[in-house]
Amino acid sequence: MSIDAVRALAFDVFGTVVDWRGSIIAEGERLNRTRGLTVDWASFADAWRGRYAPSMARVRRGDLPWTNLDGLHRLALDELLPTFGVSGLDEAEVDRLHRVWHRLRPWPDSVAGLTRLRERFILGTLSNGNVALLVNMAKGARLPWDVILSAELVRAYKPDPVVYRSAADLLGLRPNQVMLVAAHQQDLRAAGAVGLRTAFVARPMEFGPDNPPDLTPDPAFDLVAADFLDLAQQLAC
Amino acid sequence: MSIDAVRALAFDVFGTVVDWRGSIIAEGERLNRTRGLTVDWASFADAWRGRYAPSMARVRRGDLPWTNLDGLHRLALDELLPTFGVSGLDEAEVDRLHRVWHRLRPWPDSVAGLTRLRERFILGTLSNGNVALLVNMAKGARLPWDVILSAELVRAYKPDPVVYRSAADLLGLRPNQVMLVAAHQQDLRAAGAVGLRTAFVARPMEFGPDNPPDLTPDPAFDLVAADFLDLAQQLAC
Repeated sequence: MSIDAVRALAFDVFGTVVDWRGSIIAEGERLNRTRGLTVDWASFADAWRGRYAPSMARVRRGDLPWTNLDGLHRLALDELLPTFGVSGLDEAEVDRLHRVWHRLRPWPDSVAGLTRLRERFILGTLSNGNVALLVNMAKGARLPWDVILSAELVRAYKPDPVVYRSAADLLGLRPNQVMLVAAHQQDLRAAGAVGLRTAFVARPMEFGPDNPPDLTPDPAFDLVAADFLDLAQQLAC
Repeated sequence: MSIDAVRALAFDVFGTVVDWRGSIIAEGERLNRTRGLTVDWASFADAWRGRYAPSMARVRRGDLPWTNLDGLHRLALDELLPTFGVSGLDEAEVDRLHRVWHRLRPWPDSVAGLTRLRERFILGTLSNGNVALLVNMAKGARLPWDVILSAELVRAYKPDPVVYRSAADLLGLRPNQVMLVAAHQQDLRAAGAVGLRTAFVARPMEFGPDNPPDLTPDPAFDLVAADFLDLAQQLAC
Protein backbone atom coordinates (compact mmCIF):
# COMPACT_ATOMS: atom_id res chain seq x y z
CA MET A 1 0.00 0.00 0.00
CA SER A 2 1.26 3.47 -0.83
CA ILE A 3 1.05 4.65 2.75
CA ASP A 4 3.33 2.04 4.29
CA ALA A 5 6.28 4.41 4.00
CA VAL A 6 4.58 7.16 6.03
CA ARG A 7 6.58 8.13 9.12
CA ALA A 8 5.07 11.51 9.97
CA LEU A 9 1.60 12.99 9.97
CA ALA A 10 1.40 16.74 9.38
CA PHE A 11 -1.88 18.34 10.38
CA ASP A 12 -3.71 21.32 9.09
CA VAL A 13 -4.99 22.94 12.29
CA PHE A 14 -7.78 25.51 11.86
CA GLY A 15 -10.95 23.55 11.21
CA THR A 16 -9.13 20.21 11.08
CA VAL A 17 -7.91 19.95 14.70
CA VAL A 18 -9.72 22.84 16.35
CA ASP A 19 -13.17 24.38 16.05
CA TRP A 20 -12.26 28.02 15.37
CA ARG A 21 -15.87 29.10 14.78
CA GLY A 22 -17.39 27.55 17.87
CA SER A 23 -14.49 28.76 20.03
CA ILE A 24 -14.78 32.37 18.86
CA ILE A 25 -18.57 32.34 19.34
CA ALA A 26 -18.21 30.97 22.88
CA GLU A 27 -15.62 33.55 23.93
CA GLY A 28 -17.43 36.35 22.15
CA GLU A 29 -20.70 35.60 23.87
CA ARG A 30 -18.92 35.77 27.20
CA LEU A 31 -17.64 39.19 26.16
CA ASN A 32 -21.20 40.22 25.26
CA ARG A 33 -22.28 39.37 28.78
CA THR A 34 -19.36 40.98 30.64
CA ARG A 35 -19.26 44.15 28.50
CA GLY A 36 -22.94 44.51 27.68
CA LEU A 37 -22.39 44.02 23.94
CA THR A 38 -24.89 42.62 21.44
CA VAL A 39 -22.49 41.35 18.77
CA ASP A 40 -23.57 38.42 16.57
CA TRP A 41 -20.40 36.41 17.13
CA ALA A 42 -21.21 33.75 14.54
CA SER A 43 -21.20 36.49 11.90
CA PHE A 44 -18.14 38.04 13.50
CA ALA A 45 -16.24 34.73 13.41
CA ASP A 46 -17.20 34.18 9.78
CA ALA A 47 -16.13 37.69 8.84
CA TRP A 48 -12.85 37.37 10.72
CA ARG A 49 -12.04 34.04 9.10
CA GLY A 50 -13.27 35.51 5.80
CA ARG A 51 -10.35 37.96 5.83
CA TYR A 52 -7.92 35.05 6.04
CA ALA A 53 -7.55 34.03 2.40
CA PRO A 54 -7.53 37.59 1.00
CA SER A 55 -4.96 38.80 3.54
CA MET A 56 -2.65 35.86 2.84
CA ALA A 57 -3.08 36.51 -0.87
CA ARG A 58 -1.85 40.08 -0.28
CA VAL A 59 1.30 38.68 1.36
CA ARG A 60 1.79 36.16 -1.44
CA ARG A 61 1.48 38.88 -4.08
CA GLY A 62 3.89 41.10 -2.18
CA ASP A 63 1.29 43.82 -1.51
CA LEU A 64 2.03 43.28 2.19
CA PRO A 65 5.52 42.48 3.51
CA TRP A 66 5.76 39.17 5.35
CA THR A 67 3.26 39.29 8.19
CA ASN A 68 2.57 36.29 10.38
CA LEU A 69 -0.96 35.13 11.08
CA ASP A 70 -1.14 36.93 14.43
CA GLY A 71 -0.39 40.10 12.50
CA LEU A 72 -3.03 39.39 9.85
CA HIS A 73 -5.61 38.52 12.51
CA ARG A 74 -4.93 41.81 14.27
CA LEU A 75 -5.23 43.87 11.07
CA ALA A 76 -8.57 42.21 10.38
CA LEU A 77 -9.80 42.62 13.95
CA ASP A 78 -9.03 46.34 13.96
CA GLU A 79 -11.20 46.68 10.82
CA LEU A 80 -14.02 44.46 12.06
CA LEU A 81 -14.57 45.92 15.53
CA PRO A 82 -16.04 49.21 14.27
CA THR A 83 -17.92 47.40 11.48
CA PHE A 84 -19.70 45.34 14.15
CA GLY A 85 -20.31 48.39 16.32
CA VAL A 86 -17.88 47.37 19.05
CA SER A 87 -16.32 50.31 20.83
CA GLY A 88 -14.97 51.05 24.26
CA LEU A 89 -12.62 48.04 24.54
CA ASP A 90 -9.23 48.99 25.91
CA GLU A 91 -6.02 47.68 24.37
CA ALA A 92 -5.76 44.81 26.87
CA GLU A 93 -9.30 43.69 25.96
CA VAL A 94 -8.65 43.93 22.22
CA ASP A 95 -5.40 42.03 22.68
CA ARG A 96 -7.21 39.35 24.65
CA LEU A 97 -9.86 39.01 21.94
CA HIS A 98 -7.15 38.91 19.27
CA ARG A 99 -5.51 36.03 21.07
CA VAL A 100 -8.67 33.92 21.06
CA TRP A 101 -6.94 32.18 18.13
CA HIS A 102 -4.32 30.95 20.64
CA ARG A 103 -7.11 29.41 22.74
CA LEU A 104 -9.17 27.55 20.16
CA ARG A 105 -10.73 24.35 21.40
CA PRO A 106 -10.18 20.97 19.74
CA TRP A 107 -12.92 18.88 18.17
CA PRO A 108 -14.10 16.19 20.61
CA ASP A 109 -12.07 13.41 18.96
CA SER A 110 -8.87 15.42 18.38
CA VAL A 111 -6.84 14.80 21.54
CA ALA A 112 -7.82 11.13 21.85
CA GLY A 113 -7.11 10.50 18.18
CA LEU A 114 -3.77 12.31 18.20
CA THR A 115 -2.71 10.47 21.33
CA ARG A 116 -3.26 7.13 19.58
CA LEU A 117 -1.61 8.26 16.35
CA ARG A 118 1.45 9.54 18.22
CA GLU A 119 2.43 6.03 19.30
CA ARG A 120 3.23 5.15 15.73
CA PHE A 121 3.94 8.41 13.91
CA ILE A 122 5.74 11.69 14.33
CA LEU A 123 2.93 14.23 14.74
CA GLY A 124 3.37 17.80 13.60
CA THR A 125 1.30 20.81 12.82
CA LEU A 126 1.60 22.13 9.28
CA SER A 127 -0.40 25.28 9.58
CA ASN A 128 -0.56 28.83 8.36
CA GLY A 129 -0.76 29.76 12.03
CA ASN A 130 2.42 31.24 13.47
CA VAL A 131 4.58 29.30 15.90
CA ALA A 132 3.57 31.19 19.05
CA LEU A 133 -0.12 30.73 18.25
CA LEU A 134 0.32 27.00 17.66
CA VAL A 135 2.45 26.49 20.78
CA ASN A 136 0.01 28.37 23.01
CA MET A 137 -2.94 26.50 21.50
CA ALA A 138 -1.24 23.15 22.04
CA LYS A 139 -0.38 24.06 25.61
CA GLY A 140 -3.96 25.10 26.37
CA ALA A 141 -5.67 22.21 24.62
CA ARG A 142 -2.99 19.59 25.43
CA LEU A 143 -2.46 18.70 21.79
CA PRO A 144 0.40 16.18 21.80
CA TRP A 145 2.56 17.44 18.94
CA ASP A 146 6.11 16.22 18.44
CA VAL A 147 6.98 19.27 16.37
CA ILE A 148 5.44 22.62 15.49
CA LEU A 149 5.79 23.23 11.75
CA SER A 150 4.42 26.47 10.43
CA ALA A 151 4.21 28.61 7.35
CA GLU A 152 6.05 31.19 9.44
CA LEU A 153 9.23 29.10 9.34
CA VAL A 154 9.47 29.53 5.58
CA ARG A 155 7.63 32.86 5.37
CA ALA A 156 5.18 31.57 2.82
CA TYR A 157 1.55 30.54 3.20
CA LYS A 158 -0.13 27.32 2.13
CA PRO A 159 -0.93 26.37 -0.57
CA ASP A 160 2.56 27.55 -1.62
CA PRO A 161 4.47 24.32 -2.37
CA VAL A 162 7.44 25.51 -0.33
CA VAL A 163 5.43 25.02 2.87
CA TYR A 164 4.65 21.37 2.17
CA ARG A 165 8.22 20.67 1.09
CA SER A 166 9.54 22.24 4.28
CA ALA A 167 7.75 19.61 6.35
CA ALA A 168 9.62 16.76 4.65
CA ASP A 169 12.91 18.67 4.57
CA LEU A 170 12.87 19.64 8.24
CA LEU A 171 11.92 16.12 9.31
CA GLY A 172 14.66 14.61 7.14
CA LEU A 173 12.07 12.57 5.23
CA ARG A 174 11.09 12.08 1.64
CA PRO A 175 7.76 13.69 0.66
CA ASN A 176 6.05 10.30 0.44
CA GLN A 177 7.00 9.62 4.07
CA VAL A 178 4.85 12.56 5.20
CA MET A 179 1.04 12.56 5.14
CA LEU A 180 -0.96 15.77 5.34
CA VAL A 181 -4.16 15.42 7.35
CA ALA A 182 -6.68 18.11 6.55
CA ALA A 183 -10.37 18.89 6.27
CA HIS A 184 -9.73 21.09 3.23
CA GLN A 185 -9.47 19.61 -0.22
CA GLN A 186 -7.43 22.43 -1.75
CA ASP A 187 -4.81 22.03 0.98
CA LEU A 188 -4.61 18.28 0.34
CA ARG A 189 -4.39 18.68 -3.42
CA ALA A 190 -1.49 21.13 -3.04
CA ALA A 191 0.28 18.70 -0.67
CA GLY A 192 -0.29 15.83 -3.08
CA ALA A 193 1.17 17.88 -5.92
CA VAL A 194 4.56 17.93 -4.18
CA GLY A 195 4.43 14.24 -3.33
CA LEU A 196 3.02 14.16 0.20
CA ARG A 197 0.48 11.52 1.11
CA THR A 198 -3.01 12.82 1.85
CA ALA A 199 -5.73 12.06 4.40
CA PHE A 200 -9.05 13.88 4.21
CA VAL A 201 -10.95 14.18 7.48
CA ALA A 202 -14.56 15.35 7.32
CA ARG A 203 -15.38 18.28 9.59
CA PRO A 204 -18.99 18.95 8.60
CA MET A 205 -19.57 21.59 11.30
CA GLU A 206 -16.50 23.75 10.61
CA PHE A 207 -18.52 26.58 9.05
CA GLY A 208 -21.60 26.11 11.23
CA PRO A 209 -24.82 24.16 10.78
CA ASP A 210 -26.00 26.29 7.84
CA ASN A 211 -22.85 26.01 5.71
CA PRO A 212 -21.84 22.38 5.29
CA PRO A 213 -18.64 22.03 3.25
CA ASP A 214 -18.31 19.72 0.28
CA LEU A 215 -17.59 16.35 1.86
CA THR A 216 -17.22 14.43 -1.39
CA PRO A 217 -13.53 13.64 -1.33
CA ASP A 218 -11.25 13.94 -4.32
CA PRO A 219 -10.61 10.31 -5.38
CA ALA A 220 -6.88 11.10 -5.49
CA PHE A 221 -6.63 11.24 -1.69
CA ASP A 222 -4.88 8.30 -0.04
CA LEU A 223 -7.24 8.09 2.93
CA VAL A 224 -10.66 9.43 3.88
CA ALA A 225 -11.66 9.42 7.55
CA ALA A 226 -14.70 10.46 9.55
CA ASP A 227 -12.57 11.82 12.39
CA PHE A 228 -9.17 11.29 14.08
CA LEU A 229 -10.27 8.10 15.84
CA ASP A 230 -11.31 6.65 12.50
CA LEU A 231 -7.98 7.79 11.07
CA ALA A 232 -6.13 6.03 13.90
CA GLN A 233 -8.15 2.89 13.23
CA GLN A 234 -7.34 3.00 9.51
CA LEU A 235 -3.66 3.53 10.27
CA ALA A 236 -3.65 0.59 12.71
CA CYS A 237 -2.98 2.73 15.77
CA MET B 1 13.07 39.06 40.97
CA SER B 2 14.31 39.40 37.42
CA ILE B 3 13.01 35.99 36.40
CA ASP B 4 9.35 36.55 37.25
CA ALA B 5 8.63 37.49 33.65
CA VAL B 6 9.97 34.21 32.26
CA ARG B 7 7.37 32.29 30.23
CA ALA B 8 9.53 29.90 28.23
CA LEU B 9 12.61 27.82 28.95
CA ALA B 10 14.84 27.14 25.95
CA PHE B 11 17.29 24.29 26.41
CA ASP B 12 20.67 23.65 25.00
CA VAL B 13 20.54 19.91 24.26
CA PHE B 14 23.92 18.20 23.68
CA GLY B 15 25.51 17.81 27.09
CA THR B 16 22.77 19.74 28.87
CA VAL B 17 19.80 17.40 28.30
CA VAL B 18 21.49 14.32 26.86
CA ASP B 19 24.75 12.49 27.50
CA TRP B 20 26.24 12.44 24.00
CA ARG B 21 29.55 10.92 25.11
CA GLY B 22 28.14 8.06 27.16
CA SER B 23 25.55 7.29 24.47
CA ILE B 24 28.13 7.09 21.69
CA ILE B 25 30.43 4.92 23.80
CA ALA B 26 27.58 2.52 24.63
CA GLU B 27 26.46 2.14 21.00
CA GLY B 28 30.03 1.95 19.75
CA GLU B 29 30.94 -0.82 22.15
CA ARG B 30 27.97 -2.81 20.91
CA LEU B 31 29.31 -2.31 17.38
CA ASN B 32 32.73 -3.54 18.54
CA ARG B 33 31.11 -6.75 19.75
CA THR B 34 28.87 -7.38 16.74
CA ARG B 35 31.49 -6.46 14.12
CA GLY B 36 34.63 -7.62 15.91
CA LEU B 37 36.10 -4.10 16.08
CA THR B 38 38.50 -2.80 18.73
CA VAL B 39 37.75 0.93 18.51
CA ASP B 40 38.27 3.09 21.61
CA TRP B 41 34.85 4.71 21.51
CA ALA B 42 35.57 7.24 24.23
CA SER B 43 38.33 8.65 22.04
CA PHE B 44 36.09 8.32 19.00
CA ALA B 45 33.26 10.24 20.70
CA ASP B 46 35.66 12.98 21.79
CA ALA B 47 37.12 13.25 18.30
CA TRP B 48 33.66 13.34 16.68
CA ARG B 49 32.44 16.03 19.04
CA GLY B 50 35.82 17.77 18.59
CA ARG B 51 34.96 18.41 14.94
CA TYR B 52 31.80 20.24 16.00
CA ALA B 53 33.09 23.73 16.75
CA PRO B 54 35.53 23.88 13.80
CA SER B 55 32.94 22.62 11.31
CA MET B 56 30.36 25.16 12.48
CA ALA B 57 33.03 27.84 12.28
CA ARG B 58 33.56 26.90 8.62
CA VAL B 59 29.83 27.44 7.99
CA ARG B 60 29.87 30.73 9.89
CA ARG B 61 32.84 31.98 7.86
CA GLY B 62 31.18 30.92 4.62
CA ASP B 63 33.87 28.32 3.77
CA LEU B 64 31.05 25.76 3.73
CA PRO B 65 27.56 26.55 2.42
CA TRP B 66 24.79 26.11 4.99
CA THR B 67 24.98 22.51 6.20
CA ASN B 68 22.81 21.22 9.03
CA LEU B 69 24.27 19.30 11.93
CA ASP B 70 23.41 15.92 10.44
CA GLY B 71 25.48 16.96 7.44
CA LEU B 72 28.41 18.12 9.57
CA HIS B 73 28.29 14.94 11.66
CA ARG B 74 28.42 12.84 8.49
CA LEU B 75 31.37 14.76 7.03
CA ALA B 76 33.26 14.24 10.30
CA LEU B 77 32.30 10.57 10.53
CA ASP B 78 33.56 9.86 7.02
CA GLU B 79 36.93 11.33 8.02
CA LEU B 80 37.13 9.62 11.40
CA LEU B 81 36.27 6.05 10.40
CA PRO B 82 39.55 5.44 8.51
CA THR B 83 41.52 7.41 11.15
CA PHE B 84 40.28 4.95 13.77
CA GLY B 85 40.96 1.99 11.52
CA VAL B 86 37.31 1.15 10.92
CA SER B 87 36.65 -0.46 7.56
CA GLY B 88 34.16 -2.87 6.12
CA LEU B 89 30.98 -1.15 7.30
CA ASP B 90 28.35 -0.95 4.59
CA GLU B 91 26.37 2.24 3.94
CA ALA B 92 23.45 1.12 6.12
CA GLU B 93 25.84 0.51 9.03
CA VAL B 94 27.58 3.86 8.58
CA ASP B 95 24.18 5.56 8.35
CA ARG B 96 23.05 3.85 11.52
CA LEU B 97 26.19 4.95 13.35
CA HIS B 98 25.76 8.48 11.99
CA ARG B 99 22.28 8.60 13.43
CA VAL B 100 23.44 7.71 16.93
CA TRP B 101 23.05 11.47 17.50
CA HIS B 102 19.28 10.96 17.00
CA ARG B 103 19.30 8.33 19.76
CA LEU B 104 21.26 10.06 22.54
CA ARG B 105 20.10 9.21 26.04
CA PRO B 106 19.04 11.83 28.58
CA TRP B 107 20.80 12.42 31.89
CA PRO B 108 18.96 10.59 34.70
CA ASP B 109 17.16 13.76 35.92
CA SER B 110 16.25 15.17 32.50
CA VAL B 111 12.81 13.68 31.80
CA ALA B 112 11.58 14.01 35.39
CA GLY B 113 12.81 17.60 35.62
CA LEU B 114 11.38 18.64 32.25
CA THR B 115 8.05 17.06 33.13
CA ARG B 116 7.81 19.22 36.25
CA LEU B 117 9.01 22.37 34.48
CA ARG B 118 6.50 21.88 31.68
CA GLU B 119 3.56 22.46 34.01
CA ARG B 120 4.58 26.07 34.40
CA PHE B 121 6.65 26.98 31.34
CA ILE B 122 6.75 26.55 27.60
CA LEU B 123 9.64 24.15 27.04
CA GLY B 124 11.66 24.26 23.86
CA THR B 125 14.94 23.07 22.52
CA LEU B 126 17.33 25.77 21.37
CA SER B 127 20.02 23.66 19.85
CA ASN B 128 22.50 23.57 17.01
CA GLY B 129 21.04 20.17 16.25
CA ASN B 130 18.79 20.04 13.21
CA VAL B 131 15.04 19.62 13.54
CA ALA B 132 14.88 15.96 12.46
CA LEU B 133 17.63 15.01 14.90
CA LEU B 134 15.88 16.79 17.78
CA VAL B 135 12.46 15.35 16.94
CA ASN B 136 13.78 11.80 16.67
CA MET B 137 15.75 12.19 19.91
CA ALA B 138 12.69 13.51 21.74
CA LYS B 139 10.55 10.69 20.41
CA GLY B 140 13.06 8.06 21.50
CA ALA B 141 13.83 9.53 24.91
CA ARG B 142 10.31 10.89 25.57
CA LEU B 143 11.54 14.43 26.11
CA PRO B 144 8.37 16.50 26.61
CA TRP B 145 9.10 19.55 24.45
CA ASP B 146 6.37 22.00 23.51
CA VAL B 147 8.37 23.24 20.55
CA ILE B 148 11.50 22.29 18.65
CA LEU B 149 13.62 25.38 18.05
CA SER B 150 16.84 24.89 16.15
CA ALA B 151 19.71 26.75 14.58
CA GLU B 152 18.51 25.13 11.36
CA LEU B 153 15.41 27.33 11.33
CA VAL B 154 17.53 30.45 10.93
CA ARG B 155 20.48 28.78 9.21
CA ALA B 156 22.96 30.11 11.71
CA TYR B 157 24.73 28.37 14.58
CA LYS B 158 24.93 29.39 18.21
CA PRO B 159 26.54 31.53 19.52
CA ASP B 160 25.29 33.72 16.63
CA PRO B 161 22.87 36.17 18.30
CA VAL B 162 20.27 35.55 15.59
CA VAL B 163 19.65 32.07 17.02
CA TYR B 164 18.83 33.34 20.52
CA ARG B 165 16.66 36.15 19.15
CA SER B 166 14.74 33.66 17.01
CA ALA B 167 13.55 31.85 20.14
CA ALA B 168 11.88 34.95 21.52
CA ASP B 169 10.58 36.05 18.11
CA LEU B 170 9.03 32.69 17.22
CA LEU B 171 7.42 32.37 20.64
CA GLY B 172 6.02 35.90 20.43
CA LEU B 173 7.88 36.86 23.62
CA ARG B 174 10.32 39.53 24.67
CA PRO B 175 13.89 38.29 25.21
CA ASN B 176 13.58 38.66 28.99
CA GLN B 177 10.58 36.27 28.93
CA VAL B 178 12.83 33.46 27.64
CA MET B 179 15.46 31.71 29.75
CA LEU B 180 18.23 29.67 28.19
CA VAL B 181 19.13 26.58 30.19
CA ALA B 182 22.59 25.27 29.38
CA ALA B 183 25.63 23.53 30.79
CA HIS B 184 27.93 25.72 28.71
CA GLN B 185 28.96 29.15 29.89
CA GLN B 186 29.77 30.57 26.44
CA ASP B 187 26.26 29.64 25.27
CA LEU B 188 24.70 31.37 28.27
CA ARG B 189 26.83 34.49 27.93
CA ALA B 190 25.79 34.83 24.27
CA ALA B 191 22.12 34.40 25.24
CA GLY B 192 22.48 36.96 28.01
CA ALA B 193 24.03 39.43 25.58
CA VAL B 194 20.77 39.57 23.60
CA GLY B 195 18.63 39.86 26.71
CA LEU B 196 17.60 36.29 27.46
CA ARG B 197 17.59 35.09 31.05
CA THR B 198 20.18 32.44 31.87
CA ALA B 199 20.26 29.27 33.94
CA PHE B 200 23.49 27.31 34.28
CA VAL B 201 23.12 23.61 34.99
CA ALA B 202 26.22 21.69 36.02
CA ARG B 203 26.95 18.57 33.99
CA PRO B 204 30.26 17.48 35.47
CA MET B 205 30.41 14.21 33.52
CA GLU B 206 29.74 15.62 30.04
CA PHE B 207 33.33 15.14 28.86
CA GLY B 208 34.00 12.02 30.89
CA PRO B 209 35.52 11.43 34.31
CA ASP B 210 38.97 12.71 33.29
CA ASN B 211 37.87 16.04 31.85
CA PRO B 212 35.67 17.91 34.30
CA PRO B 213 34.46 21.22 32.87
CA ASP B 214 34.79 24.51 34.71
CA LEU B 215 31.79 24.51 37.05
CA THR B 216 32.44 27.94 38.52
CA PRO B 217 29.50 29.87 37.13
CA ASP B 218 29.74 33.36 35.70
CA PRO B 219 28.17 35.57 38.39
CA ALA B 220 26.07 37.22 35.68
CA PHE B 221 23.85 34.14 35.30
CA ASP B 222 20.35 34.44 36.73
CA LEU B 223 20.22 30.90 38.14
CA VAL B 224 22.66 28.11 38.87
CA ALA B 225 21.30 24.59 39.35
CA ALA B 226 22.77 21.19 40.13
CA ASP B 227 20.39 19.43 37.72
CA PHE B 228 16.87 19.80 36.24
CA LEU B 229 15.13 18.73 39.44
CA ASP B 230 17.01 21.44 41.33
CA LEU B 231 16.07 23.88 38.56
CA ALA B 232 12.40 22.90 38.91
CA GLN B 233 12.64 23.41 42.66
CA GLN B 234 14.21 26.86 42.24
CA LEU B 235 11.52 27.83 39.73
CA ALA B 236 8.77 26.66 42.08
CA CYS B 237 7.62 23.80 39.84
